[in-house]
Amino acid sequence: MNFDIKSIDMSQKDEVWQRINQKTKPIGSLGLLEKLAAQIAFIQGRKKLSLAKPRIILFAGDHGLAKEAISPYPQSVTVEMLRNFMGEGAAINVFARQHSISLDIVDCGVKGAVDLEGIINCRLGSGTRNSLKEPALSEAQLDQGIKNGSRLVLSAFENGCKAIGFGEMGIGNSSAAALLTSSILGVPLREVVGRGTGCNDRQLAQKTEILEKVLARTGPITDPWDAMREFGGFELATALGSLLKAASLGMVTVIDGFIMSAVALCAIRLYPPCQGYFIFSHKSASPGHRIIWESLAVDPILDFEMRLGEGSGVAVAWPILESAVRFYNEMSSFAEAEVSTAHD
Amino acid sequence: MNFDIKSIDMSQKDEVWQRINQKTKPIGSLGLLEKLAAQIAFIQGRKKLSLAKPRIILFAGDHGLAKEAISPYPQSVTVEMLRNFMGEGAAINVFARQHSISLDIVDCGVKGAVDLEGIINCRLGSGTRNSLKEPALSEAQLDQGIKNGSRLVLSAFENGCKAIGFGEMGIGNSSAAALLTSSILGVPLREVVGRGTGCNDRQLAQKTEILEKVLARTGPITDPWDAMREFGGFELATALGSLLKAASLGMVTVIDGFIMSAVALCAIRLYPPCQGYFIFSHKSASPGHRIIWESLAVDPILDFEMRLGEGSGVAVAWPILESAVRFYNEMSSFAEAEVSTAHD
Repeated sequence: MNFDIKSIDMSQKDEVWQRINQKTKPIGSLGLLEKLAAQIAFIQGRKKLSLAKPRIILFAGDHGLAKEAISPYPQSVTVEMLRNFMGEGAAINVFARQHSISLDIVDCGVKGAVDLEGIINCRLGSGTRNSLKEPALSEAQLDQGIKNGSRLVLSAFENGCKAIGFGEMGIGNSSAAALLTSSILGVPLREVVGRGTGCNDRQLAQKTEILEKVLARTGPITDPWDAMREFGGFELATALGSLLKAASLGMVTVIDGFIMSAVALCAIRLYPPCQGYFIFSHKSASPGHRIIWESLAVDPILDFEMRLGEGSGVAVAWPILESAVRFYNEMSSFAEAEVSTAHD
Repeated sequence: MNFDIKSIDMSQKDEVWQRINQKTKPIGSLGLLEKLAAQIAFIQGRKKLSLAKPRIILFAGDHGLAKEAISPYPQSVTVEMLRNFMGEGAAINVFARQHSISLDIVDCGVKGAVDLEGIINCRLGSGTRNSLKEPALSEAQLDQGIKNGSRLVLSAFENGCKAIGFGEMGIGNSSAAALLTSSILGVPLREVVGRGTGCNDRQLAQKTEILEKVLARTGPITDPWDAMREFGGFELATALGSLLKAASLGMVTVIDGFIMSAVALCAIRLYPPCQGYFIFSHKSASPGHRIIWESLAVDPILDFEMRLGEGSGVAVAWPILESAVRFYNEMSSFAEAEVSTAHD
């Protein structure tokens, strides 16, 4: 599947910054909010910015690698958390509700059947294969995941959504993210493997050892498609399709923490212009995240030592994006408010 | 005026953290949000937390020292910005509106008469005296400012306000804040003087030189009352009364950037237990701010290089506090959601 992703439009850079600098405040005094407003203006190419019909899509999937003792939580937690999402009791439910963000829960292939009203069925299988032994996804599963993710975003876009973010749930997916990051960036695995949901020292050593064996099986992989197929994640492949489609549609695209940033890294390596549409919501406490954001030369918005996933960072950072849009749209200029300007 | 400020109640510490740790998320994975929820629980001492009837009080005042070329903006900007606040066009208006925070604009003594509908009149004079020559405030003005600030907060509290923040506007007040900070913490002035609204290098050198002369006049002052009287700010004295009253009433009290943190520092030196009620909203780009927050061993929420004042940091950080309260109140526990817990 191919995507047509254009670079964001910087041709109005001077006009955008002039508009920001004429607001009734000292030049630069809104700091990061000004940079965010400018980025959104470059994405939307219009005078009045909009984050209308905000939406978060949360992708869930299970990992064959999870049987290798890479997580302190049992694999059943993926499905149990799906029930929690549908029951509105998880962190992402609370934060999405707080900001009136629509939340879609997508089953990309958790282990076993789930029959929950309201869940979106995009199953690629019943958990991936075990990447310690073989590629996690088949070529056909990867293709279908990209198509599914793309279709979900197109549907949101056609409903008027201007800004979208993504979350994930899947026991074992911090391992997949570590493998993707290590392979694509060519950095040692030990620098990107983290405690995930909360490994103790012994569990972390065990997790790292298992992931080293996965990499020993595959050898070096730098192609994002190949890496996604080998290390996988049904939810990650679907998210990749969504990220690429969101960029191709010119949507403001908000990235969560380590795991979704690893997918964003794949997207950017495949289509470099999509980075212009991506806003990184927070700095995760996972060690691999810093390596990604530094490699992309971006500075995520919040630094709260969060490491929950689910799109929780996207939702918590959402009002900050909204503040950026609102000051840009609504604040008076010095001329409008008849306020004196600075002298040298 | 005396304040009765009790330490926040840490006796329920274990119960509060147990409640947080039983939520359906890995232990600690909401990072700073968990610490904020715990602090608010220690302040409110109840099971369900509340930021009901949120309010920001913005204090404006003029400074006699402003005639000494310490700011690139003319003094008239203080009054012009008051008009802008009343016309809903300033940054704080936009952000308060975004989060449905009530906003009170208080004239604590700007230069010349202002006749604007809706403004709260707490004038202590028509601008302070020039602290280069004499104390900025009289003993009586300081007393009255403390009383005014206290009364305003009591009124908000009696209307059901559980959480309050404060902002300021006054050309010259970053100089007053630098003098307060340098004196009270005993740090060299050059380490705490910043560019304020945007001094260039020459203006910054000039500002520092003038402030050195003010300190040369007074000699070392470490008592916060004396420092406030000498270096002043009608808006700063009023804010000090408000901060102390908010702590005495057990309100969640949100601190803005450098200037309001200098006032918070005075409050904490006068009544150390009030620090437990204070939540520092953001890390200002003003160099003096870091010195204050480090000296208090606090880690403000946002790090956006903002330096606008007006309470803008309070308002932009508000939804983060709300997220902390909401996950604490609303998220399911592992038992409620029937989700498996981690194993060792």
